[in-house]
Amino acid sequence: MSGERTWTVGVTGATGYAGGEVCRLLAGHPQLQLTGVHAASSAGRRLGESQPHLLPYADMVVQPSGPEDLAGYDVVVLALPHGASGAIAAGLPEDVLVLDCGADHRLADPAAWARWYGTEHAGTWPYGLPELPGQRGKLAGARRIAVPGCYPTSVTLAMAPALAAGLVEPEVVVVAASGTSGAGRAAKPNLIGSEVMGAVSAYGVGGVHRHTPEMVQNLSEVAGRTVGVSFTPTLVPMARGILATCSAKVAPGTTAESVRAAYAEAYADEPFVHLLPEGQWPTTAAVLGANTVALQVTVDPDAGRLVAVAAVDNLTKGTAGGALQCANIALGLPETLGLPVVGVAP
Amino acid sequence: MSGERTWTVGVTGATGYAGGEVCRLLAGHPQLQLTGVHAASSAGRRLGESQPHLLPYADMVVQPSGPEDLAGYDVVVLALPHGASGAIAAGLPEDVLVLDCGADHRLADPAAWARWYGTEHAGTWPYGLPELPGQRGKLAGARRIAVPGCYPTSVTLAMAPALAAGLVEPEVVVVAASGTSGAGRAAKPNLIGSEVMGAVSAYGVGGVHRHTPEMVQNLSEVAGRTVGVSFTPTLVPMARGILATCSAKVAPGTTAESVRAAYAEAYADEPFVHLLPEGQWPTTAAVLGANTVALQVTVDPDAGRLVAVAAVDNLTKGTAGGALQCANIALGLPETLGLPVVGVAP
Amino acid sequence: MSGERTWTVGVTGATGYAGGEVCRLLAGHPQLQLTGVHAASSAGRRLGESQPHLLPYADMVVQPSGPEDLAGYDVVVLALPHGASGAIAAGLPEDVLVLDCGADHRLADPAAWARWYGTEHAGTWPYGLPELPGQRGKLAGARRIAVPGCYPTSVTLAMAPALAAGLVEPEVVVVAASGTSGAGRAAKPNLIGSEVMGAVSAYGVGGVHRHTPEMVQNLSEVAGRTVGVSFTPTLVPMARGILATCSAKVAPGTTAESVRAAYAEAYADEPFVHLLPEGQWPTTAAVLGANTVALQVTVDPDAGRLVAVAAVDNLTKGTAGGALQCANIALGLPETLGLPVVGVAP
Amino acid sequence: MSGERTWTVGVTGATGYAGGEVCRLLAGHPQLQLTGVHAASSAGRRLGESQPHLLPYADMVVQPSGPEDLAGYDVVVLALPHGASGAIAAGLPEDVLVLDCGADHRLADPAAWARWYGTEHAGTWPYGLPELPGQRGKLAGARRIAVPGCYPTSVTLAMAPALAAGLVEPEVVVVAASGTSGAGRAAKPNLIGSEVMGAVSAYGVGGVHRHTPEMVQNLSEVAGRTVGVSFTPTLVPMARGILATCSAKVAPGTTAESVRAAYAEAYADEPFVHLLPEGQWPTTAAVLGANTVALQVTVDPDAGRLVAVAAVDNLTKGTAGGALQCANIALGLPETLGLPVVGVAP
Repeated sequence: MSGERTWTVGVTGATGYAGGEVCRLLAGHPQLQLTGVHAASSAGRRLGESQPHLLPYADMVVQPSGPEDLAGYDVVVLALPHGASGAIAAGLPEDVLVLDCGADHRLADPAAWARWYGTEHAGTWPYGLPELPGQRGKLAGARRIAVPGCYPTSVTLAMAPALAAGLVEPEVVVVAASGTSGAGRAAKPNLIGSEVMGAVSAYGVGGVHRHTPEMVQNLSEVAGRTVGVSFTPTLVPMARGILATCSAKVAPGTTAESVRAAYAEAYADEPFVHLLPEGQWPTTAAVLGANTVALQVTVDPDAGRLVAVAAVDNLTKGTAGGALQCANIALGLPETLGLPVVGVAP
Repeated sequence: MSGERTWTVGVTGATGYAGGEVCRLLAGHPQLQLTGVHAASSAGRRLGESQPHLLPYADMVVQPSGPEDLAGYDVVVLALPHGASGAIAAGLPEDVLVLDCGADHRLADPAAWARWYGTEHAGTWPYGLPELPGQRGKLAGARRIAVPGCYPTSVTLAMAPALAAGLVEPEVVVVAASGTSGAGRAAKPNLIGSEVMGAVSAYGVGGVHRHTPEMVQNLSEVAGRTVGVSFTPTLVPMARGILATCSAKVAPGTTAESVRAAYAEAYADEPFVHLLPEGQWPTTAAVLGANTVALQVTVDPDAGRLVAVAAVDNLTKGTAGGALQCANIALGLPETLGLPVVGVAP
Repeated sequence: MSGERTWTVGVTGATGYAGGEVCRLLAGHPQLQLTGVHAASSAGRRLGESQPHLLPYADMVVQPSGPEDLAGYDVVVLALPHGASGAIAAGLPEDVLVLDCGADHRLADPAAWARWYGTEHAGTWPYGLPELPGQRGKLAGARRIAVPGCYPTSVTLAMAPALAAGLVEPEVVVVAASGTSGAGRAAKPNLIGSEVMGAVSAYGVGGVHRHTPEMVQNLSEVAGRTVGVSFTPTLVPMARGILATCSAKVAPGTTAESVRAAYAEAYADEPFVHLLPEGQWPTTAAVLGANTVALQVTVDPDAGRLVAVAAVDNLTKGTAGGALQCANIALGLPETLGLPVVGVAP
Repeated sequence: MSGERTWTVGVTGATGYAGGEVCRLLAGHPQLQLTGVHAASSAGRRLGESQPHLLPYADMVVQPSGPEDLAGYDVVVLALPHGASGAIAAGLPEDVLVLDCGADHRLADPAAWARWYGTEHAGTWPYGLPELPGQRGKLAGARRIAVPGCYPTSVTLAMAPALAAGLVEPEVVVVAASGTSGAGRAAKPNLIGSEVMGAVSAYGVGGVHRHTPEMVQNLSEVAGRTVGVSFTPTLVPMARGILATCSAKVAPGTTAESVRAAYAEAYADEPFVHLLPEGQWPTTAAVLGANTVALQVTVDPDAGRLVAVAAVDNLTKGTAGGALQCANIALGLPETLGLPVVGVAP
């Protein structure tokens, strides 16, 4: 049994937000032990300088992020910009569990990768969304896992039951609100506090956001046919959280009852997906810092549309928590081990 | 000529947010003079207690809000909860200009009123959205004006050109983000700062928000046929501002160019509607405190949808500024007189 | 040994912020088990209605808050407005551990209580700030503990080493910034989101805040003479966190080095007080949701003052975390058991 | 008479926050006409790209910022980092009114300049705080004006009456909360939204902030003797506003009444300084976008200290509004011309 065993974990990109969140969660995990932090820059500095909240790791020294620097861990988490993980992963032994929080290994279709990213496809890894039908089996024992993007996690889980059950037509409209940490830690003029506080703005409008093909891929696989996705992300004045509002035309015969039944059944045994009681709608505050998806769904009979709303913490279930959930599965540990389900509210 | 004349204005609901904004704008209007403030409660107190930002009016004493209390003004602005304005308006002379910021006189269809509000219909007044085709003529000289709701203002202006030109199918999906002032000043548990900061939540989901029939009414009139609207409002952590993300399937033959041309033409001469240069998307921060609508539109060829995004300040163009714009028209003043077009940013 | 034993815990005021935070932390505590939730109102409702983030307890039904309702627990946490806990505590057996998060049992001087609260003094309990010299001994085995206020926790820990070592004169000036959750969950007009977002305001200015005598009591005891405290609280636009900026004139001979040495020594073995490396100043974000105090101190040679800045989460170390830290001590458990030291950032 | 005359104004640093605010206010000024915008970078781009809220100026093209580029204006506003204005001003004719929003010409003592800035002193210009005793006379007709820093504006006005009247001892303790726009528009890692939202932090602690000598200079002049200032700035999660909490020990004989009388008299005729009614404390929200200082003062008899709290908008009265107020005086215009006194709240 695995009860006493621990695995060493190295995190690269540890000075960024996704990597920092992986470290935060590892501090509460009984069998995964953070033993090294890496980053493309900041090498040689104390982690506490960039991540003052990670008290137990404050005196760890940030190391470089080359493949050779990442050797020797049982588990390696890549929290890097897209394009960086392919080369690193290629240099790591096959029996090391590699969790890629970047986009490089998510898309199955090389043509889609080429269209959206414009570089050579690094290959496709098992997709780390265990709540998709049949997906847990692909993750058990895996040693390479592509962690989903934060928007696709929320949107896929919001719409999958309806599409799987044929309750809606395969054209989904999504408008999602995201906190600023989703845009990373690089200092960009449009992301400084003075610009984002007191402001809501749209960006990547018109189908150009790179998470779109990932949603199309997930939802099409669930539906068994091509699903179109109109996706508009918006930036809202908070650091963490995504609220995804998703809708589609209902198919003939779909009722509020059939919808609720489909969602209740789909997520009955899911430890991290919480279908709220009828009438209660999700707020991102309730899932802050937790690996939880808060979900609600209804039917608008006038407009003839199903509307599903999902709240996730983009850094937790949307990235780092999702990654460790997959690690638990891959390593044969209880899926929920060490992962918070209670949000930090208010 | 009207150049030198001034009109006296009384505002009721002056201790609330909409009423306070009317007062703020009146402080900058050269020919409309605030001479009395009223409220259903707070009578007898200095206005400065509840509205410390209204320095020039700080020592005005709040008066009661009965019809008799509102006699004697040239212009009366009603910034009250729905249901309150019918009786008051009935008690005012016909030659007094009455601007109702509440919902009571917006809907033309008594059955719609009954369904959505459940009370007796107070009658329909000219609808105060001058940017709608042919609407200015109905407002010139009017003495009763129904000021539009904040959500309908943004959504109607975002989608009207596309629907009027037949560029999209008549089914519109709207997800709008609103600051908390749109919910008014009453202290409700879900609106306290600890609940709304760091949080985005959806409410009124599934077609149950009362602004929905107003959008349907406006857009159907513009389109010349019934338009369905799926509307989901969300609450975001800021005090002011609405960002409405609207989309609809494009009709056959619609191109990005035909869309842009339609919007450019529709708003070419509008002083308060600003179609942004291509590639620039609206942010609510840019219109804070201004009577401006910032607008952008594009076509998503993959999803086959037109996406239009509008930003307004819910209290300014969305309520109080829209009201004074209508007052200018009704009184024969220049439409832009005294109304700010520059937002307070950052 | 106590390793396997669990204690049952009842929390009253569980629908409020302090009580909710106690519940949140109990969810991660291996030996304290939340078995009942109570509140003065809301009895009969699911806890999930008011505390949607507390997923594991969502279906617990809120019970009334009378003394008889609270019988049968090993540990009772009172998270109630001041004035409510005396009567309840009197009705509980002496061997039940009662943690009072309210003010009722903090002040040793009945005259001080009478002056600041105007009611009969409920008596003085051991004061739950283990970091004070000699205080742990008073808490070990205790069955009644007065949990400190959030402001006094931060201010006392910021200034105690300097006063204990005689490095400063006994007149302390404090300006503290607090998130809104410190004001509780009652819906008050000045606390709604529209009022607090984008705004900083001062309140309780001029020595009238009720936490002042608690600071005077703590600092005077540490200093061995009467310490004056000028305390100004301010409200800032965030839900959680306190940043206390404290200063006092340096005594003759005090140097930056002697100050740093005193603080380093005072907190060398404290698991929850973190003196930051020189040059790094605290931010509340780094301690969000953690039982950590982040602290820094320096000397301003021009002004001749020592300046100490402490950051705490008002709900965690400032209330609920401090309470459970005391419970650990009182019950003979490891002091840090089940308490997070890593903040949720960004 | 000056009634009809207009002056042309060029603003450099127009793509930043201070310069943008100057432009915003000029849009509402009847006799100062913005005719050119300049910046050290961004030359050749539309102003609307960086300042989307400045609709009337959106199509102005940003020009370079050399002395020769700034020739030909009646008024030049320098909104540049310190160190940049000396050379520019030297190249402009003496009869051009130059308003320097930077620090270069504020300090009278070259040694203080050398200590705090480390570069050659550019010389001292009349100090643009008309509310200081005798200062208006120095500004009337001036053609070079040093606009005060945002912190010194609030602190000086908060403490000047008490020091001038000898009501307090000459040692002032200031803790000020500032919105992020005070730190400028440069994209720095510690200023991105994810870092500042939900966080309060201290910086420049221990007497090292460069606004300190300016406060010392102002308050010493008012007091007629050297005044020590302990100044701690903190950063709070909002874009605009400063709340300065200032205190000093009361001198023998000082009473709450004598304090109030001194403040009431000092500011009785000041159009922009508003001493609030007793019991009402300032909030930054009430002065957002306005040239107003909201002020309150009291005495804490236990601590023996006078406490004064001032709220300003750092970009308006704290910078751009203060600059235009000075321009009005210098040009012989009514001091309040074109300057808003009503804040944008909520």
